[in-house]
Amino acid sequence: MLNCAGRDNVFVIMAYDFNEKRVQKALKIGRKYLTWVQNSLFEGEITFAKFEKLKAELKRVMDESEDSVKFYILESGKILKSEILGVDKSQTTGFFL
Amino acid sequence: MLNCAGRDNVFVIMAYDFNEKRVQKALKIGRKYLTWVQNSLFEGEITFAKFEKLKAELKRVMDESEDSVKFYILESGKILKSEILGVDKSQTTGFFL
Repeated sequence: MLNCAGRDNVFVIMAYDFNEKRVQKALKIGRKYLTWVQNSLFEGEITFAKFEKLKAELKRVMDESEDSVKFYILESGKILKSEILGVDKSQTTGFFL
Repeated sequence: MLNCAGRDNVFVIMAYDFNEKRVQKALKIGRKYLTWVQNSLFEGEITFAKFEKLKAELKRVMDESEDSVKFYILESGKILKSEILGVDKSQTTGFFL
């Protein structure tokens, strides 16, 4: 369990690798809590309580023997930099959602 | 440009979203520099010089009007936690590579 004493928000990067049968469900849940970046990738500031809800929702729809979600949990403001090569799909391809 | 004075290594998370015609090339380049985590996702400690080489290699093979790579660049040791739900594919599915 993450010790979150004194910390309300964390910055979460979420990358999922689901069987295509369930991939739309992961997308829909991700959009409720975070910002879509590109295929299978979300990011955003989130409260610790909402992060726990996000994980619970994903667990309900995923097949844990086949699907995978990786989270990177960072203290807000600790990313040195993020950088995109090529298309910034979060700006240009809302129609994918 | 990232100011890297006094910093030799950074921790890089790399997520790519390439057209399937070029996706194998991205996978091959990612493996040269970072650790494969799951579909389209790599992570690892890397020198700043190697990170520049990684980006240059990707730029050579990608179609910048269609493909996308997102990097998160972190000071080493600044990730609070990473967490996997479901399968840890980096441990179990080397055959995907």
